[in-house]
Amino acid sequence: MTVNDMMRAAKAASPVLAGADTSVKNAALEAMAARLLYRTGEILAANETDLAAARGIISDVMLDRLSLDEKRIAAMADGIRSVAALRDPVGRVIDRTERPNGLIIEKTSVPLGVVAIIYESRPNVTSDAAALCIKSGNACILRGGKEALNSSLAVSSALREGISSAGLPEELIQFVTDTSRQSAADLMRGVGFIDLLIPRGGRGLINACIENARVPCIRTGEGICHIYVDRAADIDMAVKIVENAKTSRPSVCNAEEVLLVHRDIAPVFLPVLRKALCDDRAAAGKTPVEFRADPESLPYSGGVPAGAGDFDTEFLDYILAVRTVASVGEAVDHISAHSTGHSEAIITSDSAAAEEFLRGVDSAAVYVNASTRFTDGGEFGLGCEMGISTQKLHARGPMGLCELTSYKYVVRGNGQIRG
Amino acid sequence: MTVNDMMRAAKAASPVLAGADTSVKNAALEAMAARLLYRTGEILAANETDLAAARGIISDVMLDRLSLDEKRIAAMADGIRSVAALRDPVGRVIDRTERPNGLIIEKTSVPLGVVAIIYESRPNVTSDAAALCIKSGNACILRGGKEALNSSLAVSSALREGISSAGLPEELIQFVTDTSRQSAADLMRGVGFIDLLIPRGGRGLINACIENARVPCIRTGEGICHIYVDRAADIDMAVKIVENAKTSRPSVCNAEEVLLVHRDIAPVFLPVLRKALCDDRAAAGKTPVEFRADPESLPYSGGVPAGAGDFDTEFLDYILAVRTVASVGEAVDHISAHSTGHSEAIITSDSAAAEEFLRGVDSAAVYVNASTRFTDGGEFGLGCEMGISTQKLHARGPMGLCELTSYKYVVRGNGQIRG
Repeated sequence: MTVNDMMRAAKAASPVLAGADTSVKNAALEAMAARLLYRTGEILAANETDLAAARGIISDVMLDRLSLDEKRIAAMADGIRSVAALRDPVGRVIDRTERPNGLIIEKTSVPLGVVAIIYESRPNVTSDAAALCIKSGNACILRGGKEALNSSLAVSSALREGISSAGLPEELIQFVTDTSRQSAADLMRGVGFIDLLIPRGGRGLINACIENARVPCIRTGEGICHIYVDRAADIDMAVKIVENAKTSRPSVCNAEEVLLVHRDIAPVFLPVLRKALCDDRAAAGKTPVEFRADPESLPYSGGVPAGAGDFDTEFLDYILAVRTVASVGEAVDHISAHSTGHSEAIITSDSAAAEEFLRGVDSAAVYVNASTRFTDGGEFGLGCEMGISTQKLHARGPMGLCELTSYKYVVRGNGQIRG
Repeated sequence: MTVNDMMRAAKAASPVLAGADTSVKNAALEAMAARLLYRTGEILAANETDLAAARGIISDVMLDRLSLDEKRIAAMADGIRSVAALRDPVGRVIDRTERPNGLIIEKTSVPLGVVAIIYESRPNVTSDAAALCIKSGNACILRGGKEALNSSLAVSSALREGISSAGLPEELIQFVTDTSRQSAADLMRGVGFIDLLIPRGGRGLINACIENARVPCIRTGEGICHIYVDRAADIDMAVKIVENAKTSRPSVCNAEEVLLVHRDIAPVFLPVLRKALCDDRAAAGKTPVEFRADPESLPYSGGVPAGAGDFDTEFLDYILAVRTVASVGEAVDHISAHSTGHSEAIITSDSAAAEEFLRGVDSAAVYVNASTRFTDGGEFGLGCEMGISTQKLHARGPMGLCELTSYKYVVRGNGQIRG
């Protein structure tokens, strides 16, 4: 089946799901979870094929991401069930107005229609994304990475069996087995078929979407996140937050990449930070953080001099670019010039400085005295996440079920005409 | 100044406006209105230049749209003042959560940043669009049609004088005097500078945006609107609504273009409609409506046989395509296949039929027993309108001030780190 056939089939099937009651969608999700567990053997065999092909070619970290076992498949099924338990985002009356002429206008949430997701190697994204789309009433077209092709195909086949056994058309879940650039390009140009395209991946994929997409797109997941340690910061708190933001999971988009430090506190703060992130970590057998520092920070932070690109790089590694600034305003200006608009934090006990930072920084999430690592659908209380938008149109920050819906105006009258 | 210079200047100026208090923005709007009135003489002279160049080249209807007088300029100033009176859409806390770990998360409305609008000849769009952008905290880049170039330039100069006299940078309002395709293309490709591009115009402009835009775009204003007269319709009400939707202002996007009639009522309804829209109008010296009917309707409606493209054409004229259907479902299916997703209505006294139609039709506004002509920001109670979105991402239907904003998550903690 070509991508164009899949788009046509998904669009044709989508009205059935858009009109389905919550109970029907939840039953389908339960059936998808059950079928995923039932097909564990086939999925693990397919995963072994992928792993065998990938060993020696991709890194151990990537191999681990690709790898499935019974426990991980059970977790995927639990994930689907937890989506079933979330509130249905469709059919909410967002706003209701009765006009002087008697018209009753209800702004009502509706599914987008057909959502396409282009993602990379983790096979669990296949089940997560499908579950979020089905719950929000959207048909989905999934195009995963080639390393996980067999695994994701096995997962998606199980999900299609599940949804079909619950009486909904299996065409609601499409999995693209063609991993060529052409198949991605076909999705990007699916005007009239794709209501939303979500690229989940690195800068290359995002840029390809900006350049080539003719359908509505949401940029996700690029995070050059900053923490600014103000002159009025609690040093102990600042060290703990920077350590958490940089080292708890360096490969994710909400990890810190750049540290800005007020000039007045740098001589005291940076040596303490250096001890915690470099010396203490090395002594404990953990990977020490490499500081890439501007000339003013370097004597206090140690590490190496920052190069030209270091303040514009998503390292996704145990590397931290460090720069001193003379004021909150200078920190805000640096962030305006270098951030991807994902998550930034200020550490300060000065509420005026905090408010200046909150007002001045134009990113999806702006924090006072907390780690940027909290930018996440689960941590924000959305219950799930389809990705983290770094654009301003439609959705910003973590995208949950509501962000996968649109709305329509339902207007009831009794013969009104416009004068 | 090139378009690229304008984009840079608008972006550089935008943070000042984004952080401005409501009172500052309202004072700027008042000053813009005052300066518009003060410059009436210059604006009328510029308008005369445009009119002189356009006479004999564009239609009388278009000449009337282009033409300004003291009264119209006063109405433009009133329009700006009415935007000042609207509630500030920026800084609203849309949602607030306190998480178990003590983080307080406020989803807070913020301006988009820089909004570009490409529009056609009416010079009042220049002041309307600028006022809506300034009130919603957005810098704007306006690119009007070449017929109104001198008029719009004079209007925008007055607006810039006004905003500057109120202490805000005049760079917040940019007017593109280059009316070549290249200047539109530069805006469409202004990645990193333009947060939202709104094309207001015909299908050619919309398609050019889909094909060429690399920045987020909202499709507006294409309306192939349907009215379905159900078997259970009140015939008198149906005639009044169809007459209003078709003839009260045929050139606008919420006018009806297609009439669907249930087979059972067609023999009774269509002759009555024909009398009202053709015979009575002709007798009263008004333009009669031309019916283009399918074979089953033709004997009852009169007119001419519908051609291949008639059910996919935005006539914007006294022309109505007519087709009979056998059920609500067939009407919904026809609309799914042919509508631009703007506005559709059912006329019926059968509430089950009404609900089936409301549920099945996926358009920005779906009506029961009312004219499609109500799809309008003012009529919906938004107080204003930047255009009517026919896409599902971000905004759908009439776009008011809130639809010109995004949001950010403001998160306050006291040292929280992620476990």
